[in-house]
Amino acid sequence: MEGVPHEADTVSVGEFTFECGESIPDLELSYEAYGEFTGDNAVLVCHALTGSAHVAGRRRRSGGPDTAGQARAWWDDIVGAGKAIDTTSYYVVCVNVPGSCYGSSGPESLDEDGEHWGTRFPPVTVGDWTRAQRRLLDHIGVPNLHAVVGGSVGGMNALDWAKRHPDHVDRVIPVATAARLDPQIVALDGIARRAITSDPAWQGGDYYGEGPRPENGLAIARQIGHVTYLSKSSMSDKFGRRSASRDAARDTFPVDPAADFFPYRDVESYLDYQGEKFAERFDPNSYLYLSRAMDNYDLASGYESDADALAAFDGEAMVVSFTGDWHFTVEQGEELADAFRTAGARTAHHVIESDHGHDAFLVEPDRVGPPLADFLADGVRGKSVTDTRDDEERESEFAPVHTSLFSD
Amino acid sequence: MEGVPHEADTVSVGEFTFECGESIPDLELSYEAYGEFTGDNAVLVCHALTGSAHVAGRRRRSGGPDTAGQARAWWDDIVGAGKAIDTTSYYVVCVNVPGSCYGSSGPESLDEDGEHWGTRFPPVTVGDWTRAQRRLLDHIGVPNLHAVVGGSVGGMNALDWAKRHPDHVDRVIPVATAARLDPQIVALDGIARRAITSDPAWQGGDYYGEGPRPENGLAIARQIGHVTYLSKSSMSDKFGRRSASRDAARDTFPVDPAADFFPYRDVESYLDYQGEKFAERFDPNSYLYLSRAMDNYDLASGYESDADALAAFDGEAMVVSFTGDWHFTVEQGEELADAFRTAGARTAHHVIESDHGHDAFLVEPDRVGPPLADFLADGVRGKSVTDTRDDEERESEFAPVHTSLFSD
Repeated sequence: MEGVPHEADTVSVGEFTFECGESIPDLELSYEAYGEFTGDNAVLVCHALTGSAHVAGRRRRSGGPDTAGQARAWWDDIVGAGKAIDTTSYYVVCVNVPGSCYGSSGPESLDEDGEHWGTRFPPVTVGDWTRAQRRLLDHIGVPNLHAVVGGSVGGMNALDWAKRHPDHVDRVIPVATAARLDPQIVALDGIARRAITSDPAWQGGDYYGEGPRPENGLAIARQIGHVTYLSKSSMSDKFGRRSASRDAARDTFPVDPAADFFPYRDVESYLDYQGEKFAERFDPNSYLYLSRAMDNYDLASGYESDADALAAFDGEAMVVSFTGDWHFTVEQGEELADAFRTAGARTAHHVIESDHGHDAFLVEPDRVGPPLADFLADGVRGKSVTDTRDDEERESEFAPVHTSLFSD
Repeated sequence: MEGVPHEADTVSVGEFTFECGESIPDLELSYEAYGEFTGDNAVLVCHALTGSAHVAGRRRRSGGPDTAGQARAWWDDIVGAGKAIDTTSYYVVCVNVPGSCYGSSGPESLDEDGEHWGTRFPPVTVGDWTRAQRRLLDHIGVPNLHAVVGGSVGGMNALDWAKRHPDHVDRVIPVATAARLDPQIVALDGIARRAITSDPAWQGGDYYGEGPRPENGLAIARQIGHVTYLSKSSMSDKFGRRSASRDAARDTFPVDPAADFFPYRDVESYLDYQGEKFAERFDPNSYLYLSRAMDNYDLASGYESDADALAAFDGEAMVVSFTGDWHFTVEQGEELADAFRTAGARTAHHVIESDHGHDAFLVEPDRVGPPLADFLADGVRGKSVTDTRDDEERESEFAPVHTSLFSD
């Protein structure tokens, strides 16, 4: 990122009333911005469930929130000088969402009396995230967005921009996402939250003092989530039924003696490690808040249909989905693309072949980058951008409307 | 079941040494048997993870182990007089597996000093189940089996019979199962066990006294399992994103106040109910033991390959799988059928179209019954029995070997 300007700051945007009707006196928003703003080159990147504003660049040596794991430069393969979202051309902004624990206000933040909000923090919605991002952009002087891009629940956030601010967004790129979660994933998210709240260390959300934190509950929640981010075939390729290496210890969770007769499998060891690391870096209450925002998001909310919700958007849309993703399926991506089409937006549904499941949007930069770069530059006509409809259907859509049946 | 003889008993088969090398002085086995044994009409039915020996018939009014839920006459649509597994023709036996909590010895049972075994109970394997069933059959005077049938891990148990006792089984019917679990399901099972052991009420497995039982942990484990028994589409059909009815209360697990802003969804209410009921009826330690036996089962264990493990079996096999099942997939069913074919067994892989996921083997009796009945009667030539190979491939297999290229 050398030579590219980089801001990383946490700013106060004043009193904020959430969609639930509750308010906090002072919303703080942690954001990062890369590149130079020229007036029409802003790209808002929306992070996923447990991400931070630190989308790209070196890890900060000191100061700022702890951004280990996915939160550390989580899309560094995609965003940067000369990369797909090129920070020498675009002014890239990412804002940590309210309710999170990476610098923006959330349950772990302190209220005016210096107490942790805990579960007194108002419930947050994806709509609140959009509204907070709008405030932040106003604060830094960015009225319009060339594009909004986001993966997973960040894709829902991007959709919410097209719905709420149709005149201020030219291009929207929902990646590995859908208009709403299906009940299978809603169920798994709900089970994950139950693992947190039934951990006695959760203490009703008031665990910020000296005592233990609900780390087992959060680790289990993360493990459930993690399985939904991978695919059956990627797990088979990555782990098979192998035993973990001899130095891997079953010490993350309690076990019964009978366990010793059976192998500690590589997949278990991996998930234990992931769960433990995550429990160190993420706030359990934030996990409750953010996963609930995701479960609750429904593009059509307040409208007759998804297409109706997008009716005012007259920019271009590229929906990106992945064949191995069962958290958000290709079918859901197609339904979303259909909603954009019905709404009259120029739309491409770019399907990427990948066994990497939902994680593909993070770990397949070679496949995600080119269509992203080309769509940012040229919209749905971008050379790497593909669509699920055949060429004839697309041509008829793109044909100038004044073409007469009788011209030849 | 009127007019059909029905035995339900718990018998002691003496000292039993488990595959792990540990032994208990007196293995008790709870079994039920339906019909009359004629010498060649015995059908062993193997129950699934949380099932009991009570495969069919009326609920017992009193006495015997508590067999609520799935454990109550779990295959009553399939087994009975005039049903697919016709108890007027076959002598049907089902044995509760060691390690379970429905009458056979397991962690909840008492040792010779009158103490609950708890986690001192030896680890159990699917192989131990087969060995215990062999003992039980010897005890009741059944040397040979016309067929062994089982669904899910009960299907693994059936496979284990074909592997261990190839000369004593004529027909094997592994339903909704595989030669081994894939790592995705191994992972989810492992997470489920972590939910149990990290519940402080588990107390290292020693919760049989006055104190609380790890009901939250077991309910979470069950919920994770339950999601794997359904399919995405069946969950969409059954629940959608509907809210639960107004009288459904979020009282199974602790919640934070922010939850009140969001709907309590039907799918959550359903899973809370299922989790709670299951936690009342099943022993948490048994869940650890039996799920570990399932995760660990590998048909090829001790052999070069699955086909090698089945080499001595010269009966017939019908593998039954379900299109919507992601716990055990159709692809796994096909691999299993291929192993039987390679081993030289007459084999059919009967694939049933169903959106009901893994549960289909329990809830689709109209589709499961006919091929079962016909295979029991006529083997792979049974009229409702289909195979994934085309007719030409099958015909060439079934053609008499003395047919000459030069005949006709």
